[in-house]
Amino acid sequence: MNFVAACELETSDWLNTDQPVSLGALRGKVVLVEAFQMLCPGCVSHGLPQAVRVHRTFDRDDVAVIGLHTVFEHHGAQGSREALAAFLHEYKIPFPVGIDSPSNRSGIPQTMARYGMQGTPTLILVDRRGRLRKQKFGLEDDLVLGAEIMSLIGAGGETSPAGDTRNAGSRRFG
Amino acid sequence: MNFVAACELETSDWLNTDQPVSLGALRGKVVLVEAFQMLCPGCVSHGLPQAVRVHRTFDRDDVAVIGLHTVFEHHGAQGSREALAAFLHEYKIPFPVGIDSPSNRSGIPQTMARYGMQGTPTLILVDRRGRLRKQKFGLEDDLVLGAEIMSLIGAGGETSPAGDTRNAGSRRFG
Amino acid sequence: MNFVAACELETSDWLNTDQPVSLGALRGKVVLVEAFQMLCPGCVSHGLPQAVRVHRTFDRDDVAVIGLHTVFEHHGAQGSREALAAFLHEYKIPFPVGIDSPSNRSGIPQTMARYGMQGTPTLILVDRRGRLRKQKFGLEDDLVLGAEIMSLIGAGGETSPAGDTRNAGSRRFG
Amino acid sequence: MNFVAACELETSDWLNTDQPVSLGALRGKVVLVEAFQMLCPGCVSHGLPQAVRVHRTFDRDDVAVIGLHTVFEHHGAQGSREALAAFLHEYKIPFPVGIDSPSNRSGIPQTMARYGMQGTPTLILVDRRGRLRKQKFGLEDDLVLGAEIMSLIGAGGETSPAGDTRNAGSRRFG
Repeated sequence: MNFVAACELETSDWLNTDQPVSLGALRGKVVLVEAFQMLCPGCVSHGLPQAVRVHRTFDRDDVAVIGLHTVFEHHGAQGSREALAAFLHEYKIPFPVGIDSPSNRSGIPQTMARYGMQGTPTLILVDRRGRLRKQKFGLEDDLVLGAEIMSLIGAGGETSPAGDTRNAGSRRFG
Repeated sequence: MNFVAACELETSDWLNTDQPVSLGALRGKVVLVEAFQMLCPGCVSHGLPQAVRVHRTFDRDDVAVIGLHTVFEHHGAQGSREALAAFLHEYKIPFPVGIDSPSNRSGIPQTMARYGMQGTPTLILVDRRGRLRKQKFGLEDDLVLGAEIMSLIGAGGETSPAGDTRNAGSRRFG
Repeated sequence: MNFVAACELETSDWLNTDQPVSLGALRGKVVLVEAFQMLCPGCVSHGLPQAVRVHRTFDRDDVAVIGLHTVFEHHGAQGSREALAAFLHEYKIPFPVGIDSPSNRSGIPQTMARYGMQGTPTLILVDRRGRLRKQKFGLEDDLVLGAEIMSLIGAGGETSPAGDTRNAGSRRFG
Repeated sequence: MNFVAACELETSDWLNTDQPVSLGALRGKVVLVEAFQMLCPGCVSHGLPQAVRVHRTFDRDDVAVIGLHTVFEHHGAQGSREALAAFLHEYKIPFPVGIDSPSNRSGIPQTMARYGMQGTPTLILVDRRGRLRKQKFGLEDDLVLGAEIMSLIGAGGETSPAGDTRNAGSRRFG
């Protein structure tokens, strides 16, 4: 079975991190990218809280959670770094968040366009080898997501048999 | 690492199934046993709905969900098959449910005693080789549970690499 | 405008009270009657918790909350006092609960038949003069219910102007 | 019993209305003022949805709901009309919303300062005679709020006895 490589993120800025983050640098980990807009009700009520739960549940050696602010509407209201920073502060978002690079030709930012995202929230899972394994627009079930993430944790872990939860994807409780 | 074999269930009756169910007969599958009491608020509001979500999410070739009615209090009120049958009907519980065998010497039914359960709800996970892999009294997170179940699905599946969600634990939506 | 008198409750037993309760004895107070079945999911998840909130919110000199166990199905499972007592204990129901008198001729208990109730949960409001002011099968909004109860508290209170919340229906927080 | 007059709102702009709104112009109606910040999680998850429920539940001849954007932090992120307009659009807020006039001397906007508000969300109730009857910082119970609003609807309604819900505060369901 062949999977496509996940497109690298095209970002103009990063928050909650000293260094910009890239999928390339996260090779070897499972990556959850949560694409959101701060003014999107579904992102605020479901997508982002779910991404925070993933960030708190899985070992950071196995799973990296990244937010991606994919502003495609109300650019004036939510397009600035200042607005995003205030939002991340108030909602206590703990993981790195990149600002999807605006496009010169359209209101759709570049990473969003590359991935052909339908809107927000969009949840993306990338495996340890940098391949795109899931892209879902809308809400996802925690039970399904936990299973999918563990499935990707298990793959490519030579020293951690999927059946032994203590070696693979051990959980840290927040 | 050594795991203990999960104790066989000691039951006096079964509902939602033509044949009694045993862990022995389920060897080869991951088994979730949801121990509950029909009069236990936490079981009604959280434990049983979660077990139903697991039943609906995972492929039945990989995961079997069983309910176990472990009545240790209010025996007169909830100890009868009739009471349980009415409860299962009203709450639309779809999986097999066994009645934990009452004990002659104590109010604690036999399987509950064997497992040293602290109360209800108690969630138990048994792996494909019949070993006890989780026993938790109280509420569990869907994200954690989904990951743990997938971790056990992956173990012992020679033909289904854990990283390929299509082969291991494929989901059927209810 | 003419309102009908609320039918007296026909009960075979009472729990959570030393004395049987009747609408006649509650004349002068607003009465909320919550008709439920212990095996009815909507009663357990919404109706009863709402009745408990009303019991905790309004002054007992103004509002009396009564439960009525209107068993019309699964009689064997939920028809006994013992079953109801265990349920009320586990769910910490604090107000008096009457058992609707079974009927000789039908599975529908007597008070339920008198009121022509469609099922459970059914919420009934009786005003200070004993008149039936609301009967609703299904779920009701807290905002609407709070307004309706206050509206009935205000009626017939000669010394408590409806506009002064401190005199009429003052709240005690549980 | 003496009540103080509610301070008039000091606003720099209005949205969701053709004309600016004032408490003076609403004399004769019960007014709920929901003070919020678009970046305040408690406002987004509880305060504003509750204000929307009040707007949908009570008759507009009796109750007017007004939002007041009291930005006292993250001015750069949420202080503009554009930001607020985008937020109101995404969250489908249906009632008029005023922008609390910024102050020259402090980060606390003028109406917020006049009322001595502690923060957001703050819920204010004004009676038909323009008097301040409730000011609460934090979350309020729907049951309590529904009762308080009905209590104020009843006051001052000479032709609508509080006991008759059809004349006072009749509900329109959204």
